[in-house]
Amino acid sequence: MTQTRLKSTSIAATYFPEEPTGPVLKTGCIPGPKSQTLNTELGEVFDNRAAYFVADYFQSVGNYISDADGNKLLDVFCQISSNPLGYNNPALAKAAKSDEMINAIINRPALACFPSSDYKQILQEGILAAAPPGMNKVWTSLSGSDANETAYKAAFMYQHTKLRGDNGFTEDEMKSVMANSTPGASDMVILSFDKGFHGRLFGSLSTTRSKEIHKLDIPAFPWPKAPFPMLKYPIEEHVEENRAEEDRCLKELESIIKNSPTKVAALIVEPVQSEGGDNHATPYFFQEVRRISQEQEVLFIVDEVQTGVGASGKFWAHEHWELPSPPDMVTFSKKFQAAGFYFSNPELQPKQPYRQFNTWCGDPSKAIIAKAIYQEIVKNDLVTRTGQVGDYLYGKLNSVLSQYPTLVSNLRGKNYGTFIAWDCTDVDTRTKILMGCRAKGVNIGGCGDVSIRLRPTLLFEEKHADVFVGVLEEVLKGL
Amino acid sequence: MTQTRLKSTSIAATYFPEEPTGPVLKTGCIPGPKSQTLNTELGEVFDNRAAYFVADYFQSVGNYISDADGNKLLDVFCQISSNPLGYNNPALAKAAKSDEMINAIINRPALACFPSSDYKQILQEGILAAAPPGMNKVWTSLSGSDANETAYKAAFMYQHTKLRGDNGFTEDEMKSVMANSTPGASDMVILSFDKGFHGRLFGSLSTTRSKEIHKLDIPAFPWPKAPFPMLKYPIEEHVEENRAEEDRCLKELESIIKNSPTKVAALIVEPVQSEGGDNHATPYFFQEVRRISQEQEVLFIVDEVQTGVGASGKFWAHEHWELPSPPDMVTFSKKFQAAGFYFSNPELQPKQPYRQFNTWCGDPSKAIIAKAIYQEIVKNDLVTRTGQVGDYLYGKLNSVLSQYPTLVSNLRGKNYGTFIAWDCTDVDTRTKILMGCRAKGVNIGGCGDVSIRLRPTLLFEEKHADVFVGVLEEVLKGL
Repeated sequence: MTQTRLKSTSIAATYFPEEPTGPVLKTGCIPGPKSQTLNTELGEVFDNRAAYFVADYFQSVGNYISDADGNKLLDVFCQISSNPLGYNNPALAKAAKSDEMINAIINRPALACFPSSDYKQILQEGILAAAPPGMNKVWTSLSGSDANETAYKAAFMYQHTKLRGDNGFTEDEMKSVMANSTPGASDMVILSFDKGFHGRLFGSLSTTRSKEIHKLDIPAFPWPKAPFPMLKYPIEEHVEENRAEEDRCLKELESIIKNSPTKVAALIVEPVQSEGGDNHATPYFFQEVRRISQEQEVLFIVDEVQTGVGASGKFWAHEHWELPSPPDMVTFSKKFQAAGFYFSNPELQPKQPYRQFNTWCGDPSKAIIAKAIYQEIVKNDLVTRTGQVGDYLYGKLNSVLSQYPTLVSNLRGKNYGTFIAWDCTDVDTRTKILMGCRAKGVNIGGCGDVSIRLRPTLLFEEKHADVFVGVLEEVLKGL
Repeated sequence: MTQTRLKSTSIAATYFPEEPTGPVLKTGCIPGPKSQTLNTELGEVFDNRAAYFVADYFQSVGNYISDADGNKLLDVFCQISSNPLGYNNPALAKAAKSDEMINAIINRPALACFPSSDYKQILQEGILAAAPPGMNKVWTSLSGSDANETAYKAAFMYQHTKLRGDNGFTEDEMKSVMANSTPGASDMVILSFDKGFHGRLFGSLSTTRSKEIHKLDIPAFPWPKAPFPMLKYPIEEHVEENRAEEDRCLKELESIIKNSPTKVAALIVEPVQSEGGDNHATPYFFQEVRRISQEQEVLFIVDEVQTGVGASGKFWAHEHWELPSPPDMVTFSKKFQAAGFYFSNPELQPKQPYRQFNTWCGDPSKAIIAKAIYQEIVKNDLVTRTGQVGDYLYGKLNSVLSQYPTLVSNLRGKNYGTFIAWDCTDVDTRTKILMGCRAKGVNIGGCGDVSIRLRPTLLFEEKHADVFVGVLEEVLKGL
């Protein structure tokens, strides 16, 4: 029933009349010869050794990414989960051509000093209209790392201001801070979770706990990490064990906070640990984290950089938790193109100007695209649709994957939109699946040690799910 | 002579036929009532307490910024030194409307994984065509802070790789890094200079030494700072004293590096310390810093975020130094709109992929604007012109300021394009000058404790200099 209804009103068909009905393969392998040549040339000036292939974005359409050789791959990785509405979406093209956009590009403001007369309206019709329940303020930045770091800065300033009260900075603070020493420089900490990923700048990387290669040789703050529950999937079939695992982690979390040698200013958590392996926890876990953070006066930051903007079947994934009170800050980037953090407590703005500050403080051109993205999502009810498509996709994957238990397991993301993942038996198997899919025209990405994650656009529909699962099944059959 | 030639070929007149010939004042004070209302409204959702006024960028033109009330101010601050070619520059508008730009905006790639087939060309016709002498590679990022932090990461990975040789990571490194501990997390340091400003994220802020308010309550790495020479101006009239001051700082620098408890991976320096007060040093000083850094195997990073892209009378300010060998890395942002760091040594790329990495790794839409900016600069010889205009402006300022020695002193930036500054007797005097200029229709900014810095566009010409100096003289007369 649902399937028929959705298919009959395909948004993708309307928006992308030229979207292929399946992968188009032109070269014997991907990357093809043109892609390889271009990549070698680019490599002379830019570190592109992580490149899958060189893309031709002019020729990409909807859910299909074109490479430089004219191969068209169904894209379920989507620029590391950052393409919201497909390639060459006409609604975004319209926004990109608007006078508002041209103005924003050629007259980029230093927003905190010379805000543009239309910035509030742009925010209110886009980024702020999309704000999570209970949040009505935003600090804009440029990337997910940047969003998290500015949230951390807000947390540190908030906590010290609370301690300091109405007293000004002491002479000792003023002097020591210029030497990077306490008490002027904070010795407070940000707590993150094992396997979490929060970015790669120095503060955010100190909270990132995904993989060694992300962190090696870079200085890090001595900040604590708490265990993140490693649940058994399907979650609903292991209720007791999972609850015990979550309780173990919660107990440990509380103990780490209570025994921290210096104040934990904030904790940060992803609704689904994405880079770290698509690790889920239940709403109970997050509700308890919220409770503990409030009791311990630790600010609660939800990192929705990858989970946000609709793919989970809610606009913000933390809406799945039904928290009794909203998080203190929610960070965003990726699919929204714009970045920043939401909040509601005005005390998360430092008392003095020029503390949460930098030259640009965001970018109106990205806020304008975010507005267009938000309005498209609302207009086409894409969050609901993505939830439905996700259910359909999960069901099909469940049937297929269960036939190959020696290769794949732990399908997860039920009732979580298209935010779906599974494990492979080992790295080698994962590589074979990823490469096999690519060779058959599906662009797909891994995460964690042995997992595969799906991150399609919000215009990924049942017809795309059919193509994808068909290819995957062929690949599994061939292993 | 020069004056006549420049005036007769005003680029600004061609590009901005509607640019006013002087400030246009519509309201009794700035910010006017509309600006104030809009700012109050914006303040409900965004921290804008540093706002000078709310700007109407649609109505701004060339060197004149319009506020929401229709006042048009001659802008010599230019979005904290980040507007390169004036408001609503038609050449940038053309780039903003191009198919290339629309494609870049609506199909934003994860550049290191799925580079676009035209990225090398975009780089080569813009950012790389503008590369400092001896540099042919770039790592793109999003802001000045980000540019500096990725340069720091490159430095840490380079130094550890040199130590490690061909040996892989040890088990101890792999384990400790996930706990943010040595040896996996580096205990090496980045050295910066007193009064330097390098950004506000956690790593860059640890090297920023400008003002307490930028740093208070934020954790910082225990990284060292060296003294930056505090020269007497005009530099050429205090040759001996200045040399002694520079030698004192160099000796101290060498001692700090040699006695650092852990390896100094890199040092970073601005050609002119901008935020910290427009502090200059002579080419000799920088040549010696370069010599010391090479002897001590410390990487030499030049932060050209504010000084770069033409305003100093050279495209890159460090070209003034005539170094025997190029810096190891040069960072850029602001006027280039794009950000990143240049380098030439391939060993500054880590051996493994996914180490210098993030989702976007830059932004083609900014690289496209950078290309248009670069091509406009070349086409109109704007670096030479800015050098000439700067000489003219410096000469006029010298005449005027010397008449008010109890109010202003230490004019600096001779032969340094329009990158000009001076000191005021005290904070109060500076405030009166800044506010007085604003009231008369000139938008101007301070730096350091008591300094005023000029940061006009590269299309600031002698006619604008005349207007500016006229207003400044009136203000000084009235104090």
